[in-house]
Amino acid sequence: MTVDALTRASQWPGLVNPDGSRWHYLDTAATAQKPQVVIDAITRALGSDYATVHRGVYARSADMTLAFEAARRKVAGLIGGIENELVFTRGATEAINLVAQTWGVQNLKAGDRILISTLEHHANIVPWQMLRDRTGVDIDVCPLTEDGLIDLDAAERMITPAHKLVAFAHVSNVLGSVLDAPRAVALARSVGAKILLDGCQSVARLTVDVKALDCDFYVFSAHKLYGPTGIGALWAKADILDAMPPWQGGGAMIDRVTFDKTTYAPAPQRFEAGTPAIVEAIGFGAAVDFVQAQGLASIHAHECALVEKAREALGRMNSVKLFGPADSAGILSFALEGVHPHDLGTILDEEGVAIRAGHHCAQTLMAHLGIPATARASFGIYSDESDIAALVRGIERTKRIFG
Amino acid sequence: MTVDALTRASQWPGLVNPDGSRWHYLDTAATAQKPQVVIDAITRALGSDYATVHRGVYARSADMTLAFEAARRKVAGLIGGIENELVFTRGATEAINLVAQTWGVQNLKAGDRILISTLEHHANIVPWQMLRDRTGVDIDVCPLTEDGLIDLDAAERMITPAHKLVAFAHVSNVLGSVLDAPRAVALARSVGAKILLDGCQSVARLTVDVKALDCDFYVFSAHKLYGPTGIGALWAKADILDAMPPWQGGGAMIDRVTFDKTTYAPAPQRFEAGTPAIVEAIGFGAAVDFVQAQGLASIHAHECALVEKAREALGRMNSVKLFGPADSAGILSFALEGVHPHDLGTILDEEGVAIRAGHHCAQTLMAHLGIPATARASFGIYSDESDIAALVRGIERTKRIFG
Repeated sequence: MTVDALTRASQWPGLVNPDGSRWHYLDTAATAQKPQVVIDAITRALGSDYATVHRGVYARSADMTLAFEAARRKVAGLIGGIENELVFTRGATEAINLVAQTWGVQNLKAGDRILISTLEHHANIVPWQMLRDRTGVDIDVCPLTEDGLIDLDAAERMITPAHKLVAFAHVSNVLGSVLDAPRAVALARSVGAKILLDGCQSVARLTVDVKALDCDFYVFSAHKLYGPTGIGALWAKADILDAMPPWQGGGAMIDRVTFDKTTYAPAPQRFEAGTPAIVEAIGFGAAVDFVQAQGLASIHAHECALVEKAREALGRMNSVKLFGPADSAGILSFALEGVHPHDLGTILDEEGVAIRAGHHCAQTLMAHLGIPATARASFGIYSDESDIAALVRGIERTKRIFG
Repeated sequence: MTVDALTRASQWPGLVNPDGSRWHYLDTAATAQKPQVVIDAITRALGSDYATVHRGVYARSADMTLAFEAARRKVAGLIGGIENELVFTRGATEAINLVAQTWGVQNLKAGDRILISTLEHHANIVPWQMLRDRTGVDIDVCPLTEDGLIDLDAAERMITPAHKLVAFAHVSNVLGSVLDAPRAVALARSVGAKILLDGCQSVARLTVDVKALDCDFYVFSAHKLYGPTGIGALWAKADILDAMPPWQGGGAMIDRVTFDKTTYAPAPQRFEAGTPAIVEAIGFGAAVDFVQAQGLASIHAHECALVEKAREALGRMNSVKLFGPADSAGILSFALEGVHPHDLGTILDEEGVAIRAGHHCAQTLMAHLGIPATARASFGIYSDESDIAALVRGIERTKRIFG
């Protein structure tokens, strides 16, 4: 399949306006629309295939268990991992909280330090602050380069043997900046720290190989990867995951329960208490199949070309300010002089263009940029030049209105 | 609509075998099949209606936010609560863990006691054991009556002012026993303890009114209520919820984030970090609409009649032992003399009948019954007498095979 074939409207029911026209959806970094194959996989799993997993003695439950575990294998495989290293979580946010509240509580203490960066999403800030409140660990914040990359030269100067964890976004959700992940891993290794990469914006845009990277934790969500809401993934090295204490107690994560003493199942089941998000896991697996059939290299090339065209088109407007590096991965933040991003977003909506306006759950980055909010256009596999043209038309109309 | 109308195969794609015949699905207590209206609501939410919530400046996101919050209102309304008391969780298991790790850690200390019962699901045991490990609180276990009810006379003798929490299943997932909830609440109140009710098996079978009950916490999942996997609910009294500290950090649960200090949003948002299970919440709301259109009184009557017929039919077989009270709510555990429940389940599967065989995530109850496992038939709104007839035929065949 080509990207063109995949952008056909019939394939993407979410991209069609009620009148049949194309919705210029430029908010894929918030959440991606779903291809029909993913919706169909979910519909089947809710209907003719539906059963619980791991416990049924009947054939359909055994089949569903196979499908569920196959989905785990697919999701792990997307980033070069294997299934026993992959925990299904509610989303990337829960995955980071899981690491903080199990590995963090077990391994970090007052005097230890965590290194994050100025551009992190709140999901990669607040869990560490809560861990700080619980354990007394300190948090250091790596600054950004002029064009909005995590400044690894600065990180190199900042990092010390007291740092036990580095937690960076692989791709910034606001600026699209791509981390030099191999160098970040090497930096963490140089002081014996573990490294967690927030892959929410990278897994749908870049080829990721956690084995080649040699990182320790990698987290991402399904809904930004053309999959369902309500599910995400924590990948961790097997030895680290095996040593982590349980977080949530309940069914499926135990070995044996008595009132005196309960023993726990091995990872990853130990971290999946209760009936799992069965249907969502199946849909997650279908989304991975879809993305891999297309190929991440071609998705990346497609989005890079769109970002380049968008930067060029918006750059020609003298009242538009662009943020972030020129080679951002599928995400472009900008400001229109004299117009609040929310007002811009509202007028664009009238033109059938959906962008995000706000702090993008990255208030500390907004503080760094010295603004309360940006407008953000983000691309996906289904985006095309008509979306950029509509964006440009909408901005021009906004300029006239505010002119 | 009548129950008959609702049991038509076209309404329940999960109840149809590949050859078009009816699947005799008697594992509704594990997870319920989904009516077509719920599947359709999910398909629409994934497709033509799909957008993120709470942040989009465009109309479809605003519409989705309204639908998401309407779902919260419906789910709270099902149990007589209001929306600001209702937290969406991954499931009932997570809801109990949330209470243990926020309210429990904040309010309980060594010397305090928690009262649970012998028949609790692991989800209502293990989180309290993990809290015990963290805080030093003690756990007491209320025994059962001869016919498998939580023995509230015993509870009355056991409970002391040191008890700060009572946590009971409203309906047992193994025996179908219905708790005398008003009396349990009064017992907890008599010593100033809070009370949590595990409503997983009750919300689809009984009319629940948390205001009339005056309980403190009520938890349940969507997938046992004819809704999607991956979502559940914690209801708590507003003043208790408001005072609970955050558990998971991330986007949407914050007010303002700086690297020095983060302030949190009010409940329930404070407990919903990250992009929520948007589509699942919509499906949860659709499931509540469905159940309420039918009426819980008529569902309860329907299931009680089926349990009575099943107890009568199985009771006539002299090698079958029945567990639990005669008036159990939709759930019947039994044993076939000389046959392991797993073997029975496997043979029944060949006959097109799905039951559950095992410990049902209730190993402590199995220890009480003196057996490692039971066979369990559980009914739902779509169950009918043909399912019982098929069960009886399957048991008779099993007897012949093992005879």
